[in-house]
Amino acid sequence: MPLSATSFTPVTATPEAPPGHLVIIGGGEDRSKDMRVLRRFVELTHAANPKIVVLTAASREQERVAEVYRHAFGLLGAQPIVFAMHKRTDAADPQVLDHLLQADGVFMTGGDQRKLLSIIGGTRTSAAMHRIYRERGACIAGTSAGASAMSEHMLAEGWVNPHPAKGAVDLAAGLGFLPRAIVDQHFSERQRLGRLLTVVAQNPYLLGVGIDEDTALVIERGLGLEVVGQGAVTLVDGREMQSDFLELYDRDLIELHNARLHLLPDGARHGMQEGAAPDSSPMPQPLREAVAILCSGEYPG
Amino acid sequence: MPLSATSFTPVTATPEAPPGHLVIIGGGEDRSKDMRVLRRFVELTHAANPKIVVLTAASREQERVAEVYRHAFGLLGAQPIVFAMHKRTDAADPQVLDHLLQADGVFMTGGDQRKLLSIIGGTRTSAAMHRIYRERGACIAGTSAGASAMSEHMLAEGWVNPHPAKGAVDLAAGLGFLPRAIVDQHFSERQRLGRLLTVVAQNPYLLGVGIDEDTALVIERGLGLEVVGQGAVTLVDGREMQSDFLELYDRDLIELHNARLHLLPDGARHGMQEGAAPDSSPMPQPLREAVAILCSGEYPG
Repeated sequence: MPLSATSFTPVTATPEAPPGHLVIIGGGEDRSKDMRVLRRFVELTHAANPKIVVLTAASREQERVAEVYRHAFGLLGAQPIVFAMHKRTDAADPQVLDHLLQADGVFMTGGDQRKLLSIIGGTRTSAAMHRIYRERGACIAGTSAGASAMSEHMLAEGWVNPHPAKGAVDLAAGLGFLPRAIVDQHFSERQRLGRLLTVVAQNPYLLGVGIDEDTALVIERGLGLEVVGQGAVTLVDGREMQSDFLELYDRDLIELHNARLHLLPDGARHGMQEGAAPDSSPMPQPLREAVAILCSGEYPG
Repeated sequence: MPLSATSFTPVTATPEAPPGHLVIIGGGEDRSKDMRVLRRFVELTHAANPKIVVLTAASREQERVAEVYRHAFGLLGAQPIVFAMHKRTDAADPQVLDHLLQADGVFMTGGDQRKLLSIIGGTRTSAAMHRIYRERGACIAGTSAGASAMSEHMLAEGWVNPHPAKGAVDLAAGLGFLPRAIVDQHFSERQRLGRLLTVVAQNPYLLGVGIDEDTALVIERGLGLEVVGQGAVTLVDGREMQSDFLELYDRDLIELHNARLHLLPDGARHGMQEGAAPDSSPMPQPLREAVAILCSGEYPG
């Protein structure tokens, strides 16, 4: 895509600690044909025959889902190891932790993000994922519920309304890989702009991230981001937004002014540092700040 | 709605020339129950037993549509006079022009905006509508195709894609009541944000206006605007937007940065002049400019 470039200059990575990646997938990724999104995840483990731990805890049909990803990752030349988890003690199993600490990548399947968090939130499994992401540059991926779970403040549930409406969304605690963003998935397919705007109207310090099906937002820690897949990633920045949220009753439509929208389709690629990626046109400052929020996990300035 | 107020101070109107109104309806307005949108149109003619000319030219079933609005406007205490038009000479009929020049309101029905413009665009009917709007403060309304027809640059046709895509929209010449805006209707019901963003990416000097069903954007000429109905009005301001539109192939998804979005639900009401409406909170400057674009028909500054 002309607005972006082909590589970032790794300004913070060292040979000892390459930057970790997050691959945040909007659900419905192809698992049997070209597998562009899953293939990019496997590439970003930067290992030949990478060891990938698959966590199916979000799903109600863990064995069926496990089979799908065993097959897909096998086709892509990886070694998938699937762990089903049904209760929190499963997430403290020493065998699971041994595998996680040696993994090149971790993949969280879809299902229900509340189920996923109720099983792995705050456990040694979650801690091991953070450790290999930060210390060993592992690649952490999640699709659908697994994508929502990535953020610190997690979109747990919401009713669909084409417009933002007070009380339309419930938040919960997530895994914390994205401290200042909130992720919604199946985004344009399920018309979720209204509920993402609801979250941002109520929480203007969170950057809204809507990810379409068969599409991934890829974050290279401290460096930049890219978009891969059939759809697009929608960013909603509400830091300058005004709304009448506080003065409404439940389910009233919210009036809001001055939301900023960025739309990043397949191939979009932006570095966090000025000049890190040789853009053909300079990014507007609000987009640069949004990239910084996503990639550093902190607000700029 | 708390962000807005209940009345504008008429700063330019004189007793001789009260300000005209535009009532731009997103289609599907209630025509038999509470009729909030049609009732507001009738009120804004500021006449007891107002004379309303109904133009059905957009429709392929003009007699059926005529009957619906004869009934509805009769219930609302107005005198509807319906003119079917099939060819351009019908739009120069002296009898039609006589009625138009005496009308308190004009209502354009739904159908196909290209058919409507092919029959009345540039005719004495169109000129008479402009004249009574500007000189006598008449109220000009349109629903669905009749709403799209209001702008100078008219959204004629477009395929639906959840995201903006190059070549997704065709423009045509409209009636010119809104020189610097472009109207889309059935907006959230038919998921048309993508096509409106396409128009704005290609024409960043046009303000995108998306109107939901059973919802009207009401413009008081030179003064302010309000929203009435079940849904909301979405404004897309692309004046600071960057996109890669010029570098793409047809049907490619467009990458865009820095679109501004305002969402105005039922009850939103904003004056064009600072202080004209006693807002409980000041409008951000971009919204004030958008209101000015819509109500003055000119860019500010």
